[in-house]
Amino acid sequence: MHFPPVDHQILHLKRGVEEIIPEQDLRTKLLDAEKTGKPLTVKLGCDPSRPDLHLGHAVVLRKLRQFQDFGHEIVLIVGDFTGMIGDASGRSKMRPALSLDETRRNGKTYFEQASTILAPERVQIVYNSEWLGTLSFEDVVLLAGKTTVARMLERDDFAVRYSKGDPIGIHEFLYPLAQAQDSVEIQSDIELGGTDQKFNLLMGRNLQKSVGQSPQVCMTLPILEGLDGKEKMSKSLNNYIGLSESAEQMYGKILSLPDALIYRYFELASDEETTELPRLRQFASESPRDAKHRLALSVTRLYHGSDQAEQARDHFERTIIAKQVPNDIPSFTPETKGPIGLLSLLTMAGLTSSNGAARRLVEQGAVSIDGEKVTDSRREIHTEKDTPCVIKVGKRRFVRVVG
Amino acid sequence: MHFPPVDHQILHLKRGVEEIIPEQDLRTKLLDAEKTGKPLTVKLGCDPSRPDLHLGHAVVLRKLRQFQDFGHEIVLIVGDFTGMIGDASGRSKMRPALSLDETRRNGKTYFEQASTILAPERVQIVYNSEWLGTLSFEDVVLLAGKTTVARMLERDDFAVRYSKGDPIGIHEFLYPLAQAQDSVEIQSDIELGGTDQKFNLLMGRNLQKSVGQSPQVCMTLPILEGLDGKEKMSKSLNNYIGLSESAEQMYGKILSLPDALIYRYFELASDEETTELPRLRQFASESPRDAKHRLALSVTRLYHGSDQAEQARDHFERTIIAKQVPNDIPSFTPETKGPIGLLSLLTMAGLTSSNGAARRLVEQGAVSIDGEKVTDSRREIHTEKDTPCVIKVGKRRFVRVVG
Repeated sequence: MHFPPVDHQILHLKRGVEEIIPEQDLRTKLLDAEKTGKPLTVKLGCDPSRPDLHLGHAVVLRKLRQFQDFGHEIVLIVGDFTGMIGDASGRSKMRPALSLDETRRNGKTYFEQASTILAPERVQIVYNSEWLGTLSFEDVVLLAGKTTVARMLERDDFAVRYSKGDPIGIHEFLYPLAQAQDSVEIQSDIELGGTDQKFNLLMGRNLQKSVGQSPQVCMTLPILEGLDGKEKMSKSLNNYIGLSESAEQMYGKILSLPDALIYRYFELASDEETTELPRLRQFASESPRDAKHRLALSVTRLYHGSDQAEQARDHFERTIIAKQVPNDIPSFTPETKGPIGLLSLLTMAGLTSSNGAARRLVEQGAVSIDGEKVTDSRREIHTEKDTPCVIKVGKRRFVRVVG
Repeated sequence: MHFPPVDHQILHLKRGVEEIIPEQDLRTKLLDAEKTGKPLTVKLGCDPSRPDLHLGHAVVLRKLRQFQDFGHEIVLIVGDFTGMIGDASGRSKMRPALSLDETRRNGKTYFEQASTILAPERVQIVYNSEWLGTLSFEDVVLLAGKTTVARMLERDDFAVRYSKGDPIGIHEFLYPLAQAQDSVEIQSDIELGGTDQKFNLLMGRNLQKSVGQSPQVCMTLPILEGLDGKEKMSKSLNNYIGLSESAEQMYGKILSLPDALIYRYFELASDEETTELPRLRQFASESPRDAKHRLALSVTRLYHGSDQAEQARDHFERTIIAKQVPNDIPSFTPETKGPIGLLSLLTMAGLTSSNGAARRLVEQGAVSIDGEKVTDSRREIHTEKDTPCVIKVGKRRFVRVVG
């Protein structure tokens, strides 16, 4: 195996990364790979109970893809066993959150979605129940003896819960150790994760040391904020852009991003050249409207190719820009799926104070959808078929409805 | 099965007990036994790494014997698996502290010594590796999920170590849970232990509740102080009276007890009638010398029978009382076993400032052993064959040497 020059790899691998612990070891491992011709093993742990991937997951997956492009090997660990630990609290009897069938199916879905980013022929997928499921109590005692209570309570989330008096189950202390054992099993050279995974990643490093393995380099990536511009992108907060969403949905959702996030998405979610980033930062602050379109095109292209991305842009130009919809209008995502009455939707989106007020506005001809006036107050909007669309009330009130 | 009246059982079972949690449940369980004719299962966990039993262990064992005498069943759990957890710290690889052979051998020794107190034909001995050794990681996760970090850190010793910043291995949190699982396995009705075991006993009670069993009553007994009158009796502190010691050794060691402990030993280590205890308290404070002889006779009789106990008393009367040795002389136990030179012994016991000084005293005829003058400065005392004995230096300095 032949790899690009180490300095070149490091330059690109460091882009958008929060921390590399320790950075010197990354260089050493890359130099070793160059010397021996043996690719590095790069680990990512996946949660099989959340099979819907979004741009937040893509931050880490795209970093994995870089490693692949440089010739290294990727191991995706589907945490079917560790997922069970996370879900044990409050149960009187241990029931895996997912059956083996579901786990395998979700693992497959995860892999299919991740394949829009990764080179699928060079990904190894393993299920950690394969080894964790064979451990005896004696093995667990040995594993548990590798760290201390004080060390465990240093983890941010445990520290907060402990100081607030919220219960932490003893089994939760086994989670970081179990996923650290994954690193030992696959002898990973590098593990990637969000910044919230730093503690767990370091636990893997320590466990490898304790059994005499060369310890993995821990590489943490920022947590991408969702469409609300505040919270971590997640399906449960409904502030996400799914990897399997259509080009139009993706493009439209990116247009609804708060301006303050434009540059962050260029850095973490697009494939704009690293050397371009300083100019894009300026562009985002000087012309946020245009920058947002470039970002939407750039990100959508990654998942749907240039043709579809450009069609999505054309759609938005036709239906929105041509109809003089301002660019920075708020977006609204209904809580329920399927058809929703227009009057309820107007009220829920905050455009009207009541369904009665909404009816009067429709009857006065003051409401339009994507530029077309609506006169039937029984009109329904389907959250999947009819979105994204822009609803206009009166002359100046807009909302973009996204599914 | 027919049992004595419940009130009679309770009166005697409560003697010398620190806590019964909850006391009402003890009555309920005894009433149930009376109704159904089914004896109660009384659990005691034994540490197989400490096979030498002493009067401290006897406090709990004699309480077990009471249960036997009332018709109930005793289960001794040899903690061969839990013993391993305790010893995991600092090891890179799990090695049981004891091999299976050693565990079985120590279990047998434990049983033989305990049989001087228990009715051996009605004791069931089980090894907890039988069930704990079969648990999978999944089972351990379920078990660990039964309690919380905060609850575990309430245990006195953990609390102290945590606040002092001393490391507590995560595996140590598994110990109370593992021995609690023992209660579930044998469906114990009552568990006995020293006051230092209270937390663990309650954990057993909670675990039984969580799986729908009738929870055990926890009965804690005081920790008996050793010959120094301060520390818990233990072999490692060399302040103990072993159950397998000869009648003379036992009698002699009891004579060397500090006066303040006489009543406590009457209460916890003798079989004097419960109704006699108030009078014995007065006796101990008014005539400690005579009370100590009664105590020594009473305790020695328990383990060696009346004949041997009386012979021991006669020995001490001949060699000590007759030779006007004061009763409350200090006792000294050499650190090494086997023969020790008299001169070294005198110095180690603090009777002389140097071996040279000791030699001069022997040559002057100022030293005697059990009333016989010693003139040979090369004389040796064998810690096992020649003890207990009283060495006198000059007119007023005595020490009782105990093996």
